[in-house]
Amino acid sequence: MSYAIGLDYGTNSVRALLVDTADGSELATAVYDYEHGENGILLDGSNHNLARQSPADYLTGLERTVRQCLDSAVRADPGFDPKQVIGLGVDTTGSTPIPVDQQGRPLAFHPKYQDHLAAQAWLWKDHTAHAEAAEITELARRRRPEYLNVCGGTYSSEWFFSKILHCLRSAPEVFEAAHTWVEHADWLPAVLTGTENPQVLRRNRCAAGHKAMFSDQWGGYPDREFLTQLDARLGNLSGTLPKQTFAIDEPAGGLTEMWADKLGLPAGIPVAMGAFDAHLGAVGSGIAPGVMVKILGTSSCDLVVRDNHGSQPEIPGICGVVDGSVLPGHYGLEAGQSAVGDIFNWLVNYIQPGGPQSGGHAALTAKAEKLKPGQSGLLALDWNNGNRTVLVDQRLTGLLVGQTLHTRPEEIYRALVEATAFGALTIVNRFEEYGVATEKIVSCGGISDKNEMLMQIYADVTGREMLVSKSAQTCALGAAIAGAVAGGAFPDFHVAQQAMTGYKSKVFRPITANQGVYRRLFALYQQLHDAFGIAGADENLSQVMKELLKIKDENRG
Amino acid sequence: MSYAIGLDYGTNSVRALLVDTADGSELATAVYDYEHGENGILLDGSNHNLARQSPADYLTGLERTVRQCLDSAVRADPGFDPKQVIGLGVDTTGSTPIPVDQQGRPLAFHPKYQDHLAAQAWLWKDHTAHAEAAEITELARRRRPEYLNVCGGTYSSEWFFSKILHCLRSAPEVFEAAHTWVEHADWLPAVLTGTENPQVLRRNRCAAGHKAMFSDQWGGYPDREFLTQLDARLGNLSGTLPKQTFAIDEPAGGLTEMWADKLGLPAGIPVAMGAFDAHLGAVGSGIAPGVMVKILGTSSCDLVVRDNHGSQPEIPGICGVVDGSVLPGHYGLEAGQSAVGDIFNWLVNYIQPGGPQSGGHAALTAKAEKLKPGQSGLLALDWNNGNRTVLVDQRLTGLLVGQTLHTRPEEIYRALVEATAFGALTIVNRFEEYGVATEKIVSCGGISDKNEMLMQIYADVTGREMLVSKSAQTCALGAAIAGAVAGGAFPDFHVAQQAMTGYKSKVFRPITANQGVYRRLFALYQQLHDAFGIAGADENLSQVMKELLKIKDENRG
Repeated sequence: MSYAIGLDYGTNSVRALLVDTADGSELATAVYDYEHGENGILLDGSNHNLARQSPADYLTGLERTVRQCLDSAVRADPGFDPKQVIGLGVDTTGSTPIPVDQQGRPLAFHPKYQDHLAAQAWLWKDHTAHAEAAEITELARRRRPEYLNVCGGTYSSEWFFSKILHCLRSAPEVFEAAHTWVEHADWLPAVLTGTENPQVLRRNRCAAGHKAMFSDQWGGYPDREFLTQLDARLGNLSGTLPKQTFAIDEPAGGLTEMWADKLGLPAGIPVAMGAFDAHLGAVGSGIAPGVMVKILGTSSCDLVVRDNHGSQPEIPGICGVVDGSVLPGHYGLEAGQSAVGDIFNWLVNYIQPGGPQSGGHAALTAKAEKLKPGQSGLLALDWNNGNRTVLVDQRLTGLLVGQTLHTRPEEIYRALVEATAFGALTIVNRFEEYGVATEKIVSCGGISDKNEMLMQIYADVTGREMLVSKSAQTCALGAAIAGAVAGGAFPDFHVAQQAMTGYKSKVFRPITANQGVYRRLFALYQQLHDAFGIAGADENLSQVMKELLKIKDENRG
Repeated sequence: MSYAIGLDYGTNSVRALLVDTADGSELATAVYDYEHGENGILLDGSNHNLARQSPADYLTGLERTVRQCLDSAVRADPGFDPKQVIGLGVDTTGSTPIPVDQQGRPLAFHPKYQDHLAAQAWLWKDHTAHAEAAEITELARRRRPEYLNVCGGTYSSEWFFSKILHCLRSAPEVFEAAHTWVEHADWLPAVLTGTENPQVLRRNRCAAGHKAMFSDQWGGYPDREFLTQLDARLGNLSGTLPKQTFAIDEPAGGLTEMWADKLGLPAGIPVAMGAFDAHLGAVGSGIAPGVMVKILGTSSCDLVVRDNHGSQPEIPGICGVVDGSVLPGHYGLEAGQSAVGDIFNWLVNYIQPGGPQSGGHAALTAKAEKLKPGQSGLLALDWNNGNRTVLVDQRLTGLLVGQTLHTRPEEIYRALVEATAFGALTIVNRFEEYGVATEKIVSCGGISDKNEMLMQIYADVTGREMLVSKSAQTCALGAAIAGAVAGGAFPDFHVAQQAMTGYKSKVFRPITANQGVYRRLFALYQQLHDAFGIAGADENLSQVMKELLKIKDENRG
């Protein structure tokens, strides 16, 4: 018997998951809600783009969840012994860079900076750096176009250098005090293995990949000259970034005595290199060529892989194409929607039609699922939080069209769900146009389990089978698989995935009649998408409302 | 001492108003809510375009309100004697045609048809006839382009012949049973004066004007050949339509003995020719060259006048240009927005954000009026009920753009108010482009009194002073003025208006800073307006969301 632990650092909480390496079954799990901020996120009332996190919460959560998880396991199975844990894996949100000192300690741990928002972890969904993202994109377009090829043509405000450059501009005192910046996904395994000193710290390929513009093609991170052209002070950061990065089949190191004591685990067991939650979630969902993994939560991460025998795919608007970012030996291709569940949450929490009862997810879904495709006459764009793929533009917003004087809340709810499905199809189509096919979609994340209407709409809109990952905790499971491989339970990830992952029996298949209606609605979605999203695209939109009314007339009850 | 009575038939109720001809002051008033249907409107659950009314409600309401009004007057002023009433005027909604038999009795009064929806009055906002409106427009464009010049280039589904042709197509048994069709505004004065027999019935110039394509230019109503080309059976209607129509300075006749008895009024007093509510509302609000009267209710009617010395103005998208339709001796120019208050009512009644308390008009307005122009980042099109002016297209719908994950209900509420203001400015601008200037705007209708935020937004957006008509019942007052002129109290309408109308002391003046922001938002509104509303207008909309975010960033608190 051997076990592995996966640590999954999400947006609002961290989870530890203890699994049996034989079949991936869960022996125990524990969750810790971050203590600081609103739902674990440090906000700034005057700037809705800001989202930070306290690194202290990461360590508190580490200790609490692993301890609690092991205690539960012992209670659940008196035969279980923490000594049977052979390895750990870690995933986190990202890009979530943390400014650190020369020893690799977060500046936020210094009394001087503990309350400074810029000294905290810059959470993935922090969008304060949109101007800097545009600046980096513009410079790369002129001087280093190759940097943009691997990240879809546009560098995002969510990413590593945008955030660091924005810190330099908006809080120079923090930038100056930082020796370097470390991704949460690198910092946590480094802490566990005592390798957080920047001189020995290993950085992972998944986070470095496109989000920090790392590639073997140009010998690592962006060169000093490029960074210096953005700002001379940014050029100095260059010396703190290594030439090499590591995939999840490499260990970060062995668990230190101190952390082994704190957590109640054997010292020295390997801690795998970290990766972003979506990437390890894809591993835990059984990602393989032809199988897209769609992690559906507040936002979505959509991952596909292709073997790395041919040349590296270059796909406009696809943000991340990195050799080994998901599975060793494969290009990992990363896409995603900036908001999915967050859009439905917005309607429920901010608009709350009819009040708390009738304006909740359950009540709205119950009514919305009775509607036929097209009968509301509504069409929405899923851009309330910008558009990550394929437009890579945070300065976009939501749109709803087709309202009459009789439009009802459940119609809006369904239109928002449909909009996210159209956004999903836009991504699938873009991959396919560039030779990366998707035969079926495996989804994971709470929405997949909770909302059958959404799953059916996605099947109808995408024209593909929608499967649900067996594990409810695929990110943590993926991290545990990395721990299991690092611990020697499997020779490679393919064998590990076969043993430890699977799908639920309920499969959502496209319904032909619905597909016909959604094809027409998607054509209109594409018109709006291009008109509002693409500079220079002159779309004649004068038929949009009329076509929606026509579809409505044809599909009303 | 002399008094006049104005009867104002609205969408949900009828009002009688008794005024002193000396100064227009109200001695008494009474309202009757129509008994049949939902809020007085007969609906069809399977067709949201349908809106009919029971003609029986018109007669019940007539008797109840006049009786009650006179009773109140006697109680309020024991010196008042109903014999001092010198005349009556009537306004109604329109185009609201009623199918009648050879004696001029509504078919709805025949037991065979009393429950037939097509045999009732076809309320102005009935939009079932959009296909027929397009058909009439298309035929007129090819064969009688002059018909379209006076109605803005497009014949509407709300108008006389569209509705009749739709009845012919959808309920031929009703069409066949009808001898002719009579506007509510003609039928009611005819009933009071015993002139409802189609052979002697006088039809008013205001209703006939553009909505029934009547003009002296081509000798009256559309010719038989034209109607026959639409449908041979429609051609037969031609023989039942007179060559001459009458403005409000003419009487329909004298009050019959029977109605004098029923109402408690002197027999034989003149009943003025009827007109549509908006037109008499404009008279009651002091309309004059340079003064636009904007009647703000569920929808808006915007009226301006120009002296009839020059040639008849031809303004694209302006639905009605009729000599004498508002004031004798002036061209009346009619425009309007298909929904104003109805859009806010939709948000409050159908969406009801946060529930009945926080989702009501008062709560939303209280929060919305604290917002600065532009700070929500939202922009809406006011087309939830189509666009009457300047696009004349019922097959348009609402649109909201700029939503983030933090958009709040009051921001949406304000954006909807602003959208109606932009729609109002679009109308003012169109008039001005064709030489009909608006120096100030007098509004009347409930919203003008109730919502100061809206009035200020309209002033800021239009860049014009917004005044509020002194009377809360301008339509009924206008009808009473017509009654007063018919009864001989004044030599003409100009003198009558000077004596009997006025403004409230509170004036809303444009605020310079707000005007600047709204000019930018209006430019974006125009882009959306043209892109979604005008075939062949290729607008590049890719900067719309970004410009909204820029305005938002510059105007946030």
